[in-house]
Amino acid sequence: MPKTAYAALSKEDAKREFDAVSARYAELKAKNLKLDMSRGKPSKAQLDMTSDLLTVLSEPEQCVSDGLDVRNYGELAGLPAAKKLFAEILGCKPEECFIGGNASLTLMYDLISKAFTHGLKNSDKPWCKLDKVKFLCPAPGYDRHFRITESFGCELITVPMTAEGPDMDMVEELVKDPAVKGIWCVPKYSNPDGVVYSEKTISRFAHLKPAAKDFALMWDNAYCIHEFEGDYVPFPDILSLCREAGNPDMVYEFASTSKITFPGSGVAIMAASENNLRHIRPILATQTIGFDKINQMRHVKYFGSADGIRAHMRRHADILRPKFETVLRVFERELGGCGIAEWTHPRGGYFVSLNTMDDCARRVYRMAKSLGVALTEAGATFPYGCDPRDRNLRIAPSYPELDELATATHALCQCIRHVSAEVLIREKALGSLRE
Amino acid sequence: MPKTAYAALSKEDAKREFDAVSARYAELKAKNLKLDMSRGKPSKAQLDMTSDLLTVLSEPEQCVSDGLDVRNYGELAGLPAAKKLFAEILGCKPEECFIGGNASLTLMYDLISKAFTHGLKNSDKPWCKLDKVKFLCPAPGYDRHFRITESFGCELITVPMTAEGPDMDMVEELVKDPAVKGIWCVPKYSNPDGVVYSEKTISRFAHLKPAAKDFALMWDNAYCIHEFEGDYVPFPDILSLCREAGNPDMVYEFASTSKITFPGSGVAIMAASENNLRHIRPILATQTIGFDKINQMRHVKYFGSADGIRAHMRRHADILRPKFETVLRVFERELGGCGIAEWTHPRGGYFVSLNTMDDCARRVYRMAKSLGVALTEAGATFPYGCDPRDRNLRIAPSYPELDELATATHALCQCIRHVSAEVLIREKALGSLRE
Repeated sequence: MPKTAYAALSKEDAKREFDAVSARYAELKAKNLKLDMSRGKPSKAQLDMTSDLLTVLSEPEQCVSDGLDVRNYGELAGLPAAKKLFAEILGCKPEECFIGGNASLTLMYDLISKAFTHGLKNSDKPWCKLDKVKFLCPAPGYDRHFRITESFGCELITVPMTAEGPDMDMVEELVKDPAVKGIWCVPKYSNPDGVVYSEKTISRFAHLKPAAKDFALMWDNAYCIHEFEGDYVPFPDILSLCREAGNPDMVYEFASTSKITFPGSGVAIMAASENNLRHIRPILATQTIGFDKINQMRHVKYFGSADGIRAHMRRHADILRPKFETVLRVFERELGGCGIAEWTHPRGGYFVSLNTMDDCARRVYRMAKSLGVALTEAGATFPYGCDPRDRNLRIAPSYPELDELATATHALCQCIRHVSAEVLIREKALGSLRE
Repeated sequence: MPKTAYAALSKEDAKREFDAVSARYAELKAKNLKLDMSRGKPSKAQLDMTSDLLTVLSEPEQCVSDGLDVRNYGELAGLPAAKKLFAEILGCKPEECFIGGNASLTLMYDLISKAFTHGLKNSDKPWCKLDKVKFLCPAPGYDRHFRITESFGCELITVPMTAEGPDMDMVEELVKDPAVKGIWCVPKYSNPDGVVYSEKTISRFAHLKPAAKDFALMWDNAYCIHEFEGDYVPFPDILSLCREAGNPDMVYEFASTSKITFPGSGVAIMAASENNLRHIRPILATQTIGFDKINQMRHVKYFGSADGIRAHMRRHADILRPKFETVLRVFERELGGCGIAEWTHPRGGYFVSLNTMDDCARRVYRMAKSLGVALTEAGATFPYGCDPRDRNLRIAPSYPELDELATATHALCQCIRHVSAEVLIREKALGSLRE
């Protein structure tokens, strides 16, 4: 195993490394692998852990919450008991919670959709009536966020991520443009970098002074209680901070139980100022009479309290931790010291973010695919699916079993070494030509 | 009880009737009633009937459908087994079914919403880019339909209902206008009239030649298997008819289990041509990764087959039939022969539609409200909530218990007689003045 930096290898050593890796690639190819590290899907063991949720409501008499028959129509904004539960998790007020269906992605989409067709609370007109709508996309980021705003024809503007969150100097500058209508954020264990926004970053967000008075801070707190390493990390309530900073209606916070209970059958939450909810409720009332309240009540009854959810998350952590450790161990073993890749060491969330050398990520992605190892498509973590340095890969360790994961990560590393060695040899050859 | 037409009453008899009804009104007022006939909500007995649905999936091993773990992400268009089940109900092909979340209203809203922001399959541009979008609204009709298109700024055009469905001469004329982009239909047991569209009406719809090539026939088959009187009435598959008539992409059909299982936690279906689904799927894929498949599978397992659903509907019928009989019996007893109101005699669906004399419905609605009897607001069955003759009232008998329903209907009848007698006396007085 090489612990020498590739850059320091002689031409001959580089060739030797390339041949060795090529041989390992051929061996792996012969194994006809079929492994998937592409999406942040919980594993079967995680889903099985929550089985009692299926039967926690079994009798009609149990289907009453605060005097309301949860089986029937109505209660657009969700069960009061569900609002109370999730407000405790997010640190906001129950009155600021809107409980939706099975996907926070849908709540986010619908908010943007309504901004375009009806306008947000402080909009002068619906965004579809504007010549140009721009949206800020901290990247690497979440492809599905970017795609929502792309789908409505927004111009997506990349904002680099730092170790403290998005580059706030740049954000503060960009929001001076009134066409900039919002920004996508995953503030805790960001997707894919696993960055927890610093106190300073969060405060600068709360104090933002956008030219657009209907600027939407899309605060997707998807991993708010998703630590897998170490203790629960307290996180400030962005709604309070924005209110205190004189920006009460700027922020929309989202969360869901997709990675707490069942990904396909969880409960989604939108938290926003009471004024914002008063504006959006009648618009949503045209779209639905109400979301699935039986499922909301299942969640309330199953967990009992925010402490119940936190205890449940520690059991998820016990399943997830060894998976992340496996990926990081194989990365260190196969790539450590080579100087051809860098990767994150997250303590929560669902991803490891890996950067190859510039201009290598697409080739690594395709090579891994040809080995039967599925990754999130290279480029996906950037607006328009286009990574300007072509180097970022998002690794999702949650779904495969441990042994599969080790094999998949090993295979990925051989692809990275193969592509890197090839680049190195080409550069050395070019160097010789120049001499 | 009067069996004389009000019009034939002498001035004195009219005064006597008015006094008698006023006295009964005062008696009812003293009872402080609190009764609701406003919305088509299933009753507790109906909901209790379906309790086993809550626990039909209880073990993780059961959560696999066609090899797919229904608890996890994915399968945007729904479970194949659910498509098969509902295709059998609607008479279309499984590949033409898209299985959604808990509300067909949301699928309808989302279709119109996407027409505005992205365009339908045959649209030249998104509807939000057009100066004017018109939508046809057969009325009396369903207020929530009208509100969807109103909410997007459409001009709503009223089309009168006949005993065979919407006035097709008028529809065929109106669709020559390219700004007319669609029509709302409830083809079986229409809301509120309970009309089953005739074969001829359905055929004329299938053969429609709208000027707008992206005209949307919104076919809300909400009561497709909702007979409460007599045998199941077979109904043609509108998708086949439109295909045969050369209009394969014109129609979008909707249905749900809201009034089959649980109103708040059912499963919704959209059926459309495979080309239409190919167009809409990637747009919906931006909004959600997938709907609640556990709940889809609960429904598949609970019913087993379309026959299973039909058997279940006969049990609903047994609960609903006496309720409709009660309303009609009280109407006949209190209003029969008076010539002051007409009402429908539906054999399925959820409503009785009642017409008062012209210009009386709002007053009746308010008077009933003051007695504690909630009705759907007068006017609601027409676009913009405005009934040009102010005469239609929608009665929803499903929710109250039988005795409450009798009391509420009796109270409603007294209000109708009160308002009618008052009108009669005023007219007689005006007549005397003129003499």
